Formats: sequence, C-alpha cells, structure tokens
Amino acid sequence: MAAWAERLSGVRGVLLDISGVLYDSGTGGGAAIAGSVEAVARLKRSPLKVRFCTNESQKSRRELVGVLQRLGFDISEGEVTAPAPATCQILKERGLRPHLLIHEGVRSEFDDIDMSNPNCVVIADAGEGFSYQNMNRAFQVLMELENPVLISLGKGRYYKETSGLMLDVGGYMKALEYACGIEAEVVGKPSPEFFRSALQAIGVEAHQAIMIGDDIVGDVGGAQQCGMRALQVRTGKFRFQPSRLCPPLHQPCLGRLR
Amino acid sequence: MAAWAERLSGVRGVLLDISGVLYDSGTGGGAAIAGSVEAVARLKRSPLKVRFCTNESQKSRRELVGVLQRLGFDISEGEVTAPAPATCQILKERGLRPHLLIHEGVRSEFDDIDMSNPNCVVIADAGEGFSYQNMNRAFQVLMELENPVLISLGKGRYYKETSGLMLDVGGYMKALEYACGIEAEVVGKPSPEFFRSALQAIGVEAHQAIMIGDDIVGDVGGAQQCGMRALQVRTGKFRFQPSRLCPPLHQPCLGRLR
Repeated sequence: MAAWAERLSGVRGVLLDISGVLYDSGTGGGAAIAGSVEAVARLKRSPLKVRFCTNESQKSRRELVGVLQRLGFDISEGEVTAPAPATCQILKERGLRPHLLIHEGVRSEFDDIDMSNPNCVVIADAGEGFSYQNMNRAFQVLMELENPVLISLGKGRYYKETSGLMLDVGGYMKALEYACGIEAEVVGKPSPEFFRSALQAIGVEAHQAIMIGDDIVGDVGGAQQCGMRALQVRTGKFRFQPSRLCPPLHQPCLGRLR
Repeated sequence: MAAWAERLSGVRGVLLDISGVLYDSGTGGGAAIAGSVEAVARLKRSPLKVRFCTNESQKSRRELVGVLQRLGFDISEGEVTAPAPATCQILKERGLRPHLLIHEGVRSEFDDIDMSNPNCVVIADAGEGFSYQNMNRAFQVLMELENPVLISLGKGRYYKETSGLMLDVGGYMKALEYACGIEAEVVGKPSPEFFRSALQAIGVEAHQAIMIGDDIVGDVGGAQQCGMRALQVRTGKFRFQPSRLCPPLHQPCLGRLR
C-alpha cells in the first residue's frame, strides 16, 4: 500500500465517473457495483472533496440522482457535473437553437431552450431514439445549414448495461460527421473544459485531483491531458486492450480502493 | 465541342453510375432523370462498350434492373456490376459467415451463403433497417469476435431520393468502426478492385475508360485513382462544394453529354 500512498500524495479531490463505476444501468434501475456504495460513503467521510463527473445523457440529473439514491448512494443533484446543463449554457451563450436528437429522459434539461427554426443539432445517447428516421432528420437539418454546428454530449464508444455492451453516442456522432463532412463539438468528457468545470465546483486544482472511471479515453486519457491523475476501474466497460495512453492506476473496482 | 473531343479521345468504354445519374430512387419506383433514357440508348448504339457500375445495395440486381426497365432504360442484369454479388464471392473465398445488416430487398443475393455462427458482419444501405437494435446487434457480434471483420457495401455519405437527401451506409460503417476500434473493408466504389472488375467485364483498360457519376468521392475520385477519366453530372446528390480531388469533367446531366 506504500506505493499507493506515494502515487496519491497531495490529492485533495476525487472526480467519480458514475456509469460502470458506481452502477451498471439497465432495466429496473440497474445494479450497484459491489462495494461502490460503501466506497462513496467512505470518500465522503474523508477530508477529500468529491464530485461526480458523468457523461450520462439518457437521464436528467434529477432522475439519475434518484436512481442512485434508491441504490443506496449518498449523492445529490448539486454534486453532479453532467453534459446536458453544460450544453444548455453553451446554447444560450452562442444564441444556438437546437434540433435535438436525444433520449426522452433528458429532455426536461432543455425545457427553457428556444428550439424554433433550428440552427444547430444536439445529439446525446438517444438509445432506441437512434432510428434511421431520426438520424436522417438530424442529417437533413445539418445539410440545410450554411454553417452546420453539431454538438455531441460525450463521444463514448459504448457502455455496459446489465444486459451487455451498448452502443453509445460516439458512433452516431461519427456517422453525422462523416455524412455531413463536419466535425462535432463534444461537451462532456474528455473535453478539458468539462473536467475544469467539475474541478472548479469543488475548488481543487488539476494536479491535486484524481479521476476514477472505466473509460480509458473519456475518463483516463481526458483527465491526464488536463494534468490530473487517473485511475481505471476494471468494472463497467473495462476490457483488456492495448493502449498508447499513459498507463492509468488500475483497480478492480471502486470498492477495492483503499 | 473540340475541347470535349480532345478530353475524350481514346475512350473505348463507359462506366455508368445508376442512382443520381440514370434515376432518383423513391416511392413508386423513383423517377428517370431527364434525358438519361435516351442517353443510354445513344451510348449503346455507339461503338463504346457500356457497363453499369453501382453501389446500390437496397435492391438485388434483378429488382434494380426491373425498376430501370419499367422507366424505359435498355439494361439487363448481366450488364451490372454491384457490390452484393462481389461480397458473396469474397465471403466464399475466405470462408466468412456473415451476420447481415442489410435491406430486405437485397437479401436474395445472399441466398446461398452460410450464415450459421457468424464470424463477420456485412452492412449495406439498410435504410429503416438501421435501427438502434440492429446496429447494436451488429456491434455486439463484432465485439465478440477475436478478429472482427466488417465488410461494407460501399461507403457513400448520402444519396438523393425523390423526397430529398438520405443517409447512406458510410456513416453507419463509420459508427461501427469507431465503436469497435476497427477498420471496415469496403466492397464497391471507390474500391479499385470493384472498378477493375467492371472494366474487365467489358474488356477495356482503365486509360480507355470514363466513369460517369454524381459522387465526387465514390465515382470521380475512385475512378481517377484507378487511372480512368471521370465525369461528374450535376444531378442526384451533386452539390457545389470545394474539393481537393483532381477536377472532374462537369456536365449538368447525362442527357446533355454529346
């Protein structure tokens, strides 16, 4: 454990990914990952600042927090950094009126956004909403714009549900990028702005923080590029695979972190 | 017209794209593009060898030719180079058993292919078949394979139906490539093997042939990379846009080619 103490020296804050680290989503609200409820409780009893930093875009923060509370987690809405509210801020700042290709569960986050006469497309993990018809409509909106703007809530490749691996928004973002010959703007991990807003919320500098996640690119790579340390759990979507990124600190699961 | 004569000197064979050049597909069988029925008839009366070279993958050759014949075109099944039969040949040669993500209209081309215990995925322009569930199943099949093989029938960005622009297979190919971290093998234009098989069928060398199409990448770029000349019609999916490819010879439509 001495090696761990050294590698974690100076850490004042912890950013926790949610899906694949705290729980696997799925029918009936999903399932907590063994040991994670107690691990979160222990972190919160410690002097460390804790913030939840998620790319979840199928649920509003309220719904997500409700699911986690029912599974026993000590978590509140105000502790969560999520891409939908960050997107709404960008839309307002830039006068963008989105055509939304999103899951119904997250639509309430966009309640006060002007969606008349769209001048951009926002996509999130729409799940079954990624029908050909919906994708084609988003494509047509983009092709009709002189300066097409595509905003993607994260760019994850896939995630793990209790029933198995599921395609995430990233592939669909790539599909629209390719079809329209454009590049999307990603709001969420691994965007540096997103990590910085999470750190700012707990008043911790990047070099004093560690990100814990299951995604080698979105969580580990993104955090490392921001100057943070990163720890990859072997739960959720974790699969053994070669990586050219700086090696993260590996732990089998959040519950085993001492 | 002297300039045209010079640019077309030595041409012995013509490869004709179908969708967007001869007709726009759509409900009720689609519509012939003005002048194209007569242009094909005139080409066939000339000493030029003619071959139809299409990435159509929603219909079997039989169905496609039937549609075109009903619109008045002089065309037979044996004159068409299409990606589905080329794919079947590759599957047999390499002992590949596909999981198919394709349109029902082209399924008959795969009638004599072994699809038990799949060891690859074949995608084509599945249209409405590109549901989240079907995409996710293809993704899961690939992720379960030790050496995932993804074969894509063309990689078009979009095409034009009578009702407007429609997403083609290319975006969905990119989505699976990204999600699985793999690269697809493309059968169809702009693959050089595909153009060469079309040329071989009419016994014409690349430098003696011209490709006529509406796709700047699939038709024009692909043909030029094979050493052919290329002509882009301004029908179908044609849109004014900057291109870093060698400039093609532009004509408003096939019917205006003299």
